[in-house]
Amino acid sequence: MAKPLILITNDDGISAPGLKALVEVARSLGEVIIVAPDSPQSGQGHAITLTAPLRIKSVDVFKGIEAYECSGTPVDCVKLAKHVISKDRNIDFCVSGINHGSNAGINIIYSGTMSAAMEASLEGIPSIGFSLTDFTWDADFSEAKPYVKALIGYGLEHGFGPTNLLNVNIPRPSDVPLKGIKVCRQANARWVETFQEGTDPHGRDYFWLTGSFVSEDDGDDSDIHALGEHYISVVPCGHDLTNYAALEPLSPIEKIKAD
Amino acid sequence: MAKPLILITNDDGISAPGLKALVEVARSLGEVIIVAPDSPQSGQGHAITLTAPLRIKSVDVFKGIEAYECSGTPVDCVKLAKHVISKDRNIDFCVSGINHGSNAGINIIYSGTMSAAMEASLEGIPSIGFSLTDFTWDADFSEAKPYVKALIGYGLEHGFGPTNLLNVNIPRPSDVPLKGIKVCRQANARWVETFQEGTDPHGRDYFWLTGSFVSEDDGDDSDIHALGEHYISVVPCGHDLTNYAALEPLSPIEKIKAD
Repeated sequence: MAKPLILITNDDGISAPGLKALVEVARSLGEVIIVAPDSPQSGQGHAITLTAPLRIKSVDVFKGIEAYECSGTPVDCVKLAKHVISKDRNIDFCVSGINHGSNAGINIIYSGTMSAAMEASLEGIPSIGFSLTDFTWDADFSEAKPYVKALIGYGLEHGFGPTNLLNVNIPRPSDVPLKGIKVCRQANARWVETFQEGTDPHGRDYFWLTGSFVSEDDGDDSDIHALGEHYISVVPCGHDLTNYAALEPLSPIEKIKAD
Repeated sequence: MAKPLILITNDDGISAPGLKALVEVARSLGEVIIVAPDSPQSGQGHAITLTAPLRIKSVDVFKGIEAYECSGTPVDCVKLAKHVISKDRNIDFCVSGINHGSNAGINIIYSGTMSAAMEASLEGIPSIGFSLTDFTWDADFSEAKPYVKALIGYGLEHGFGPTNLLNVNIPRPSDVPLKGIKVCRQANARWVETFQEGTDPHGRDYFWLTGSFVSEDDGDDSDIHALGEHYISVVPCGHDLTNYAALEPLSPIEKIKAD
């Protein structure tokens, strides 16, 4: 049987150590093609580039591996990978990351890493977004890598049942070794923002986004809870944002007539 | 009772006719504050600006209405509105749009309009994203406006039950008058992309995203179906992307041990 073709992308840019870690794992499981942003794209969410053209450059970053850097967002990278770069080949699997920083809880909607994986899943490609809960550039991926390999291997062999998208978060190395994997739901946790206010060298005021992550979820079945217990969290994801519980209570709205 | 404070934002930029239509409606229902991007931000999804500072300018666009243009994304605008511009006042309601173009089906995840409304809802502010299914700059919002007013009025009076976020799409004017409102679910519909390939004046290749919207959903309870029947679609939304049906089938993953 032919080796599976695995697309690798991320949002930290093609030179990120997290991408390198993912490449080292994935190349042992299949043929790898890398299509990643040419600059950091953290926080890009599901942004796409509509008002400008995109550029692609073939780069020789990993020996023997076909790799491209693109001028757009993570989602643009996946679209280009599917429709331009590999259009005559079938992408069997997509992995995004390993992100430098957590994408648990509500982070998923801001995350370029997860949006890239979601975009691939919308194209029918089974996908995993991987994140390590350490946002530093020199984060240590060594403890994570065997699990990353096992999860990709599981997906290639079995698929993911009723979903084709996983949000995987991995605790950063600590005194407590990883205990294993928990399948869980997205925690009800969010960012509480503040802005650093200042004046630039040209005398203009600016506001720079910062904030702290707050969990308002005390359930023991969430991704945030699993990470706190030193487990890897695996959240199966979808892309239907409908709140079904609200459909019936909102039915009076259908009686509204315009004046 | 004090007038409610209504935040207005969008993704087409502060000069968009759709924003003007929304302001004209909302100012009859409460005190209005506008915080909108200083440039078009379509397709920005839930992008936020992390690696650069943001700028705010007070602008006199609508007579007697407090208005600001911001350098960031639609989600940045909402964060700035909440945490910088109106920090001593309570925002009672947020409306985003009226977008020039549909945000039905999967468009919600690419849409800056909907992401801005979702960001406000994450802050606990009841929010509606409005879109007209006409992407042209001179789109006609006149038939939409009475319904927009009625929906905001409903939300201010009753709230939205178990959700605080609505995705409202309105058919553009046609020979068939609007029939009313349907509360529905997000259709399983997506973009099938193509890239226009070309060479720029400097001899460099480029790829420009385009595509066609395809519904793979033949249910009669979806937003796309409602729009096709000349109804306004109202989808109650959430921000939990967990695919709950996949939790149990994925439980074998918990048995994975790292090598």
